[in-house]
Amino acid sequence: MSTHTNGAAAAPHEKHILVCNDDGITAPGIRSLVEAVRPFGRVTVVAPDSPQSGMGHAISVGKPLRLNKFDFAPGVEAYACSGTPADCVKLATGILKVRPDLLVSGINHGSNSSISIFYSGTMSAAMEGVIEGIPSIGFSLCDYSLEADFTASRQVVATLVRAALDHRFPEATVLNVNIPNVTPDQLKGIRVTRQARGRYIEEFDHRTDPYGRDYFWLTGKYSSDDLGEDTDEWALRNGYVSVCPAQVDITAHYAMPILNQWGLGATERSPA
Amino acid sequence: MSTHTNGAAAAPHEKHILVCNDDGITAPGIRSLVEAVRPFGRVTVVAPDSPQSGMGHAISVGKPLRLNKFDFAPGVEAYACSGTPADCVKLATGILKVRPDLLVSGINHGSNSSISIFYSGTMSAAMEGVIEGIPSIGFSLCDYSLEADFTASRQVVATLVRAALDHRFPEATVLNVNIPNVTPDQLKGIRVTRQARGRYIEEFDHRTDPYGRDYFWLTGKYSSDDLGEDTDEWALRNGYVSVCPAQVDITAHYAMPILNQWGLGATERSPA
Repeated sequence: MSTHTNGAAAAPHEKHILVCNDDGITAPGIRSLVEAVRPFGRVTVVAPDSPQSGMGHAISVGKPLRLNKFDFAPGVEAYACSGTPADCVKLATGILKVRPDLLVSGINHGSNSSISIFYSGTMSAAMEGVIEGIPSIGFSLCDYSLEADFTASRQVVATLVRAALDHRFPEATVLNVNIPNVTPDQLKGIRVTRQARGRYIEEFDHRTDPYGRDYFWLTGKYSSDDLGEDTDEWALRNGYVSVCPAQVDITAHYAMPILNQWGLGATERSPA
Repeated sequence: MSTHTNGAAAAPHEKHILVCNDDGITAPGIRSLVEAVRPFGRVTVVAPDSPQSGMGHAISVGKPLRLNKFDFAPGVEAYACSGTPADCVKLATGILKVRPDLLVSGINHGSNSSISIFYSGTMSAAMEGVIEGIPSIGFSLCDYSLEADFTASRQVVATLVRAALDHRFPEATVLNVNIPNVTPDQLKGIRVTRQARGRYIEEFDHRTDPYGRDYFWLTGKYSSDDLGEDTDEWALRNGYVSVCPAQVDITAHYAMPILNQWGLGATERSPA
């Protein structure tokens, strides 16, 4: 593997788009994503060599990483990476020296709305892009099936990518785009939303292995008491694409006055 | 393994504290954490059976989980879990039915200030607690060594845990507590801070294996242009404990007016 990007040099004004995902470089979702962004310029793909769903913002500490050229499609420079989605972005910028105008991640097979942003490998790749100063968007289709129909999603990607390249991108912000599982003519439009309050109610499928030892499969159902009509969940339930901006500075400023009532300042200048 | 918690029933008004970490159940840091919180009530430990640094908010999807009783210390109910830090919290509440008054995670061997909150398994266990409605605090000592001195940290933990149990805990907020690597008498006090703007500048140690193939070790240096004296980084550099509140709703409300200028609403009610 060369450590330089050997793809055709970008034409003047041609945009360079970095494509990542978490379902792995062979997933149908990343094929649809590449297809949708190719008309906008030069495309480089760096994606995990195996599925990485649920990896959150994991990075590989204490184990080495591999990066191998991958025959993705004619004219598309692509690499399969042995690490996590966040690792892929770090290798793309750190080893391949990719300096993209935009990073897109996905298209994820399954929703990443509400609290799922924390568990999502798709969104962690996009968040890593933002941390490195790259305008970044994660795309997810609300259909977990490997046979999901990405027709409407490709149109949504094209709309969002064109908008992102043509307008000011909010700083230190990642866009979490979720797409309802409907046909293009059923799509009602695109809404800018906030993250719905919600959580997964854990359920475990408790089994016993052939040697008499217990093990557990993690499952769970999404639960929310958030009835707002401005949330990502509401948009998806009502046939809209949700564009939810999320921030890299997650300081809870509202909590500071509460914590300042705790009297911790009393320890100031004396041993805690 | 029983699926019920068989420890001594909590005395009336006795607090129940759940302890997690990401360095694994045998790490010195979690021993110090348990030692510091035991005076406050009943303690249950559920921690990974192996180190999980850098796991971010990963959860185990598609692989089964094990949970085994662990002989931690007399009077302390403890379990080693085969999964990630976030899995530990899910198993504690979902299988062991632990309903703690407080969750504490750590004490991490190494800082989790600034942007590191996204990569940190320690903080993801605490964040998972908050998602499940449990007041949760992550503790990290700015010393990566396994021989780190946790004397000052134990005092800090006791101060924070007492304050958290005695006062209103901010909702949907996790506390990211980082402790400078100093002796107790060098500690200047405790500061409520905001997350410093910063990132890791990736560096890779590029090597070739005995078979002629490339591999990479991920390293990197923290870099920040944030000169604010109200940040977690400033507090640590100046000998203060940093208590940085972080939110579960990470919607970037400031970005909404910018995105609403993108003209995405033009797609409303027509196919995107």
